[in-house]
Amino acid sequence: MPEDLRNRVVRQPTVAGLSEADLLARIFPRLRMEDSHTSNTLLGPGDDAAIVAAPDGKAVISIDTQVQDQDFRLLWPNGYRTTGFDVGWKAAAQNLSDINAMGARATSMVVSLTLPVDTPVSWVEDLADGLTAGIRELGASHCSVAGGDLGRGHEISVTVAVLGTLDGGSPVLRSGARPGDIIALAGTAGHAAAGLALLESGIAVETLSPAGRAFVDLQCRPRPPLAAGPAARAAGATAMLDISDGLLRDGQRLATASNVAVALDPALLTQLADLLRPAAALLGADAAQWVLAGGEDHGLLATFPAGVQLPPGFTAIGSVHALGADDGPGVLIAGRPADAGGWDHFAH
Amino acid sequence: MPEDLRNRVVRQPTVAGLSEADLLARIFPRLRMEDSHTSNTLLGPGDDAAIVAAPDGKAVISIDTQVQDQDFRLLWPNGYRTTGFDVGWKAAAQNLSDINAMGARATSMVVSLTLPVDTPVSWVEDLADGLTAGIRELGASHCSVAGGDLGRGHEISVTVAVLGTLDGGSPVLRSGARPGDIIALAGTAGHAAAGLALLESGIAVETLSPAGRAFVDLQCRPRPPLAAGPAARAAGATAMLDISDGLLRDGQRLATASNVAVALDPALLTQLADLLRPAAALLGADAAQWVLAGGEDHGLLATFPAGVQLPPGFTAIGSVHALGADDGPGVLIAGRPADAGGWDHFAH
Repeated sequence: MPEDLRNRVVRQPTVAGLSEADLLARIFPRLRMEDSHTSNTLLGPGDDAAIVAAPDGKAVISIDTQVQDQDFRLLWPNGYRTTGFDVGWKAAAQNLSDINAMGARATSMVVSLTLPVDTPVSWVEDLADGLTAGIRELGASHCSVAGGDLGRGHEISVTVAVLGTLDGGSPVLRSGARPGDIIALAGTAGHAAAGLALLESGIAVETLSPAGRAFVDLQCRPRPPLAAGPAARAAGATAMLDISDGLLRDGQRLATASNVAVALDPALLTQLADLLRPAAALLGADAAQWVLAGGEDHGLLATFPAGVQLPPGFTAIGSVHALGADDGPGVLIAGRPADAGGWDHFAH
Repeated sequence: MPEDLRNRVVRQPTVAGLSEADLLARIFPRLRMEDSHTSNTLLGPGDDAAIVAAPDGKAVISIDTQVQDQDFRLLWPNGYRTTGFDVGWKAAAQNLSDINAMGARATSMVVSLTLPVDTPVSWVEDLADGLTAGIRELGASHCSVAGGDLGRGHEISVTVAVLGTLDGGSPVLRSGARPGDIIALAGTAGHAAAGLALLESGIAVETLSPAGRAFVDLQCRPRPPLAAGPAARAAGATAMLDISDGLLRDGQRLATASNVAVALDPALLTQLADLLRPAAALLGADAAQWVLAGGEDHGLLATFPAGVQLPPGFTAIGSVHALGADDGPGVLIAGRPADAGGWDHFAH
C-alpha cells in the first residue's frame, strides 16, 4: 500500500490499546534529561516512590493541575489545535514558576496523567516531549521527572507536583514588602492574555502576524523567567510572587500579605501596554486590561529595598507605601485604587 | 420557619457560589493537625509554594490521582453513597502507602482538587475532614497538608503528592529479594476486593452483616499498615512493595525486579481466603480470586533474610527461590506458575 494511502486508512492508535506498563514504556524514554549526571533524582521511576535530593534539608513544593476545556481547549475558535507538546510544556512552566517565585530552583517533578481512552498515544508521547523541552529550554537544568501516575477519566487532566531547593537560603515570601521598597516586574505582562484573546477570536491562526502568533505561542507555552527568582533572592528581594492572575490581583495579594499600598507608575504600565496595542486594535480590545489582568505569562512581581541594583530581567514599575490611617492594603495607579483597565483612559 | 422544613427548602450550597479564596478558607481549618508543633511543614499554604523539612537531605515522593467513576462511584449499585470523607481518606491512604512501601514515613502532602461546579461545599469540607482523619488515624502523625491547588472540571479528581523521609536510612526497593529469603505480608489481602464486589452487587448495603460492612468500609477507607514499612526496613527487609494490584501481580513485579521466583504457600493463602468465604458465598464469588487479585487493601509484600524475626504485623506466606535454567521470574503456587484463583481448587 502506498505510504500516503496507508496513513489515511490506518487509525491512530489510542491509549485504550495499551496497558499502563506499555504506555509508561512509551513515555519514560522521552522524559530523560541530557545532563542526567547532574540530576537531583536519586531514585527514579520503577518503585512505589521516587527519591530526590534536598541538600540543605528543606524541599520547596508546589502542585498544579491543568484540565481540558478549563485550562486549555483541544480546538480553539481560531482553529488552533492544542498539542500534547503545548500541554506538557505548560505543565512544566506553571509549576517551575511557583518554585521560581520563592527564589528557589526546581530539582524534580512527579506527574499524574488522567487520559480518556480515545487519547492518541502520539498525543501522550508529545506531552512527554513538551514536559522535557519545557524543563530544559526554560533553564531548569537540574530538574527531571522522577515518577508519576497514569489513570483514566472522561477529560484530560495533567497534574504536576514540583520540588525545589533554596540552596541553604531563605524563601522570598509575599509578606515582606516594606514602605520605601521598589516594586519590579520580571517577564512579560499581558502577552499570554493577548494570545488567549486571539485563540478565542474568529481570526484564523494562519493569518496572524508574527507578533500575534508570538502571543498565541506564549499562551500555549509560557516562558517564566526562571533565572530571575533566585537572582531576586540573592539581590535581597523583600517580597515576591508569580503573576498568575494579573498584576492587579497578584499585586493586591502582595499588598495584603505585607499590609502596604503598592503604587504602580502609569507611564511604565503604558509602556507595557504599547507592546500589545496592535493586537488590541485587531480585536477591538483593551491593551491596558491585558496588562493589568493577564496572568499566564508567569512573570514575577518582586519588591526590593530602594537603592538595590535590580537583578537582570527586572524593571521597576512602582513603589511601596505605608497605609494611610483609613486605607486598606491595595494597588494604586496614579494615586487612585486601581481596577483593571482603569488607568489607561488617563494615560492618553 | 421550623428547622426541619427549612432544611428541606434551602438548597445545598455548591462550589459555584464561592471564589477560590472563599473555598480555601472553608478547607484550610479542617486540614490543621493537632500536633502541629511536630509538623515537618516549615511553610504552609499562602505563598506560591510550601516548604517541607527533609532532615537527612533526601525527600521520598509519590503522586496518585483518584477520578470519579474510575476510582470510586458517587452512588454504588448496592445503594452506598461515597462521601467526601471517604475520598479524602482514600487519597491520604493510597499515598501514605507508597511512602510506607519504601520503608519511609510521610512528612507532608500537597493536594490538587478538580471539582464540578455543582459539587456541594459540604462534600468538599467532608473531603478535607477525611484527609485529616486518614492521616491521623492511620498513624502518619508527623504529616500534614502543606498546600494545594483548586480548579474546575466536569468530574471530581483528587491528586495528592506526598513527601516522606527515610530518616537517614536506605530505601527498600523491589529489586533486592534473594533466593532463600522469606516472603511476608503485612495487612489484609482481598478484603477491599470483597468490599468492591459487595458495592457492585444488588445486595443493599443496609442489609450487610458486620463483616460484610467491614469489607465495604475497607474498600472506601483503606487502612495501610503504616508502622510496618519502616519496621520492615529496620528489620533488614531485602525487597518491598505496596500491594495495589493484588498479591499475584505485585508478587510478579517483585520477582521480575529481583529476578527470582516467589513461591507462595497454598495453605497460608487458604487461611487468607477463609476469612472471605462467607462474603464469597453470598455473592457466588471466588474468595481465592480476591486474595490473589485484590489490591486496594494496600498491604505490604516484603522479603526478609531467612532467620530474621519478622517485625510485628508481618506473616510469612512463602519463600524466594533462584530461577531454574529455563524459567523466567514469577510467582509459583504449589510449584506451578500461578494465575488468579488457580490454587484454590487444589487446596480443598
